[in-house]
Amino acid sequence: MKRRKSVAAKAKGRRNAAPEKLALGQLNRHLGYFLRRLQIWVFQDFIQTLAPVKVRPAQYSVLLVIEANPGRSQAAIGQMLGIERARLARLLHELERRKWVSRRASGTDGRSHSLYLTEDGEKALVKIKSLAERHEAQLADYVGPKRHGQLMDLLRDFR
Amino acid sequence: MKRRKSVAAKAKGRRNAAPEKLALGQLNRHLGYFLRRLQIWVFQDFIQTLAPVKVRPAQYSVLLVIEANPGRSQAAIGQMLGIERARLARLLHELERRKWVSRRASGTDGRSHSLYLTEDGEKALVKIKSLAERHEAQLADYVGPKRHGQLMDLLRDFR
Repeated sequence: MKRRKSVAAKAKGRRNAAPEKLALGQLNRHLGYFLRRLQIWVFQDFIQTLAPVKVRPAQYSVLLVIEANPGRSQAAIGQMLGIERARLARLLHELERRKWVSRRASGTDGRSHSLYLTEDGEKALVKIKSLAERHEAQLADYVGPKRHGQLMDLLRDFR
Repeated sequence: MKRRKSVAAKAKGRRNAAPEKLALGQLNRHLGYFLRRLQIWVFQDFIQTLAPVKVRPAQYSVLLVIEANPGRSQAAIGQMLGIERARLARLLHELERRKWVSRRASGTDGRSHSLYLTEDGEKALVKIKSLAERHEAQLADYVGPKRHGQLMDLLRDFR
């Protein structure tokens, strides 16, 4: 019995492995549970799809926000994305190490730094964005294109 | 200048602090970004609302799934909830320490354990569920009751 089951589970592949059917119980009433499940799928797919460029979701967000708002402070970007100070500092350190982002001391406040993409960063972003688009297409495929649009409309206000 | 700003920021309260208006850029096209933002709000609200009983979202999920499926194995529950083995072991250890969950060696497989709520666990769950309901009401209030229902309908398939 045991062996047959484990062979069957393997044959189905990791993503589609059907768990033993357990009841959700009252989890069924919690939107947060379903949000979290889909969000985990999304992050896993994003990380796998962007593995060739080794870019994770938070790094991607920071790159796009710097691109859209060049010269803004670390504090402003952290606040906007809800990334805490120490974590953002590590993340930016890594993006600087890869020569994608540069920090310049701001004229008005010596402790504050303005963030910019470097030329290398802009070049890298072309490839990164094309992989992120592929991820988004995979997500639309997973939830269905119609539902993808509906979810966008319902969630867009909560940024 | 600096002082005035930080006083103003404090006066607004943490949750409603209006970030400097930055553009989202192409993040605007990514459902995952919006999913993540709302999911973070949900988890923060859940953790705050359930602070009196010190129960976090993953612990709550595990309690509800054990309640709905008494006697199932750690492996089955971990697989269903997508919690990896080591993390689930730590989480169950904590729930046993609080005397809410008991593990019994399964008859058929010495290495496997069947999970049950204890009487204390069932009692604690009454209070825990009532706080979780309050959290859910707050979430419905945050997104609007109509949108709460629509999101449920759209996300329920992805468990």
